Amino acid sequence: MPEGRFSEFRREKSTNRWCIVAPIRHLRPGEVTDGSTERKEPEILEERIKKCPFCPGNEDKTPKPTILEYKKEGHWSLRIVPNKFPAVSIEAIPGGIPLQQQKFGVFRILPGFGAHEVIIDTPRHDEFFADFSLERTNDLFWAFRERILDLRRDKRFQYILIFRNEGWAAGASLEHSHCQLIGLPIVPPLIEKEFKDAESYYNDENSCVYCDTLRQEMEYRDRIFFANDYAVALTPLASRSPFEIWVLPKEHIPRYEESAPRYIRGLVEVVNQVAKRLAKITTPPPAYNFYLHNGLLRNGEVEFPQFHHHFEFVPRITRLGGFEWGTGLYINNIVPEEAAAFLRGVTVG
Amino acid sequence: MPEGRFSEFRREKSTNRWCIVAPIRHLRPGEVTDGSTERKEPEILEERIKKCPFCPGNEDKTPKPTILEYKKEGHWSLRIVPNKFPAVSIEAIPGGIPLQQQKFGVFRILPGFGAHEVIIDTPRHDEFFADFSLERTNDLFWAFRERILDLRRDKRFQYILIFRNEGWAAGASLEHSHCQLIGLPIVPPLIEKEFKDAESYYNDENSCVYCDTLRQEMEYRDRIFFANDYAVALTPLASRSPFEIWVLPKEHIPRYEESAPRYIRGLVEVVNQVAKRLAKITTPPPAYNFYLHNGLLRNGEVEFPQFHHHFEFVPRITRLGGFEWGTGLYINNIVPEEAAAFLRGVTVG
Repeated sequence: MPEGRFSEFRREKSTNRWCIVAPIRHLRPGEVTDGSTERKEPEILEERIKKCPFCPGNEDKTPKPTILEYKKEGHWSLRIVPNKFPAVSIEAIPGGIPLQQQKFGVFRILPGFGAHEVIIDTPRHDEFFADFSLERTNDLFWAFRERILDLRRDKRFQYILIFRNEGWAAGASLEHSHCQLIGLPIVPPLIEKEFKDAESYYNDENSCVYCDTLRQEMEYRDRIFFANDYAVALTPLASRSPFEIWVLPKEHIPRYEESAPRYIRGLVEVVNQVAKRLAKITTPPPAYNFYLHNGLLRNGEVEFPQFHHHFEFVPRITRLGGFEWGTGLYINNIVPEEAAAFLRGVTVG
Repeated sequence: MPEGRFSEFRREKSTNRWCIVAPIRHLRPGEVTDGSTERKEPEILEERIKKCPFCPGNEDKTPKPTILEYKKEGHWSLRIVPNKFPAVSIEAIPGGIPLQQQKFGVFRILPGFGAHEVIIDTPRHDEFFADFSLERTNDLFWAFRERILDLRRDKRFQYILIFRNEGWAAGASLEHSHCQLIGLPIVPPLIEKEFKDAESYYNDENSCVYCDTLRQEMEYRDRIFFANDYAVALTPLASRSPFEIWVLPKEHIPRYEESAPRYIRGLVEVVNQVAKRLAKITTPPPAYNFYLHNGLLRNGEVEFPQFHHHFEFVPRITRLGGFEWGTGLYINNIVPEEAAAFLRGVTVG
């Protein structure tokens, strides 16, 4: 059972579903456990800035050491620090020691080893992702690349997820803009399934399922709402939520961090447009998540070159119920083609 | 693309994930699309009752025909009616006609055929599930049995899910207590996985993984918080959310509706205790979902007798973020053994 400050991975043979039991996360700011779903914050911006651990001047409120820092005109413009309430910890297993799964009958336990980093992507408390300049977005995506390249040297990581929680309803605990990175000692179930499906498609068709999807979408055109020479933004046919969006590179690139700098610049333009347009679908702007689905590694080498990395954006504007929890099926009440038409028509500054 | 009042199942080869696109659901009462998460209701109970379609006197506000009705002293005590904003419809395909999946390159489309019923389980607007008497709970669970027995005669149903959304944050659109039933022409992904896992365990160990889990839990005792001769309530080792609860029958019964009446009475006592104790974990009581995971049928016969039906309760007191959406992994900030200890100590009236 988890002791002290480390979490643990747990699985039972009936579901084969790994879960992370991390009691320290209960201490997160504004953690709500009373069935309500709203966060209470002081109304005045200055007060919120004063107590914000991500604002300049409060750097001592984030855990040490600073993992990465970009500077502009003498001040930091992006900072990466360890998460204060980590779901997984590098220190859960001393360096170089392999992970060992414990078995107790139908139960499996794995120490809560991993990396959990916070990417503070703007020094400004009142700047949201949709407000980001191309330059700031570019810095963020460059930082993703740097962190993945660094962490993948540790062979104990089976998967590294980059993600963003935008808004309280999407899981953000702090208002100040940030992304997160979690490095895991296991391949998570959704990733494993995505790989198996891509592999079985490749075995049947001898081509990449994402390349084929892209070709088909570029022919139909009714779900694509923005594109440049490098990447495409579309609302997928089987969107799980209204205004779900995928950003796919046009070129077949298995892993994000191995893409050319000119592709990253192109991708950044598409992501910037997605953020700005998504902010217009509701008033106030919707809560949403985005994350990177990246290729798999084995011993530091790309394991499955048929994979095609991409970013998925999931707005959190409908509620999940017992049907979704009980089946893994999603009910979407807005037709993806209509969502795309709306996003195509949005004018952004 | 979905036309008129029917929904459609959609899947793309990349994810192989069926989603239901159901634009009619957008018209549900109180559907919030502005990024806020709160429902606004009149404060006075009498006003809420006056406009409630599930209250006695307003029966004409629910779709016809009434599917099932139980009576007590001349008034209905339980009513089952079609969902007014159905995710799936029996009329999407005329009776007796087999379902056909359409293929367009990497896309798959299936008509939105199915059953979507609402089980109004009390005539009283201000009675919550935790307030139910044993008798009322028993009527509800007897109604589940009746509906499943009736619907399973239609061989086009591959799976029938019974579920409850308790509270706004858990997906309930109406305040008045109710459960739902959705009959599907496909086996949903989570169910398929649960069956494959149970099958592979059976092939390895020659026993039921739920029977073995139960044996192990009854030996450890640290996650069981209530039991009688028929069923056990426990917080599973790898709980996805704080206070996740499973109710497992002690006997190996593949399908719920085939269990003996005395088992249903025993189960009802356990479920009634779960509801009353769960209501005490937060103030106000938490939102939660519960659903039945039942055995599979093929041509009306139990397909996989090694399955062990059970009920899962998932409190909705933490928020899902990009990590959960991107990986399918869950982070739980309350240790299941501590949740069980709390639930064991709760005194209920």
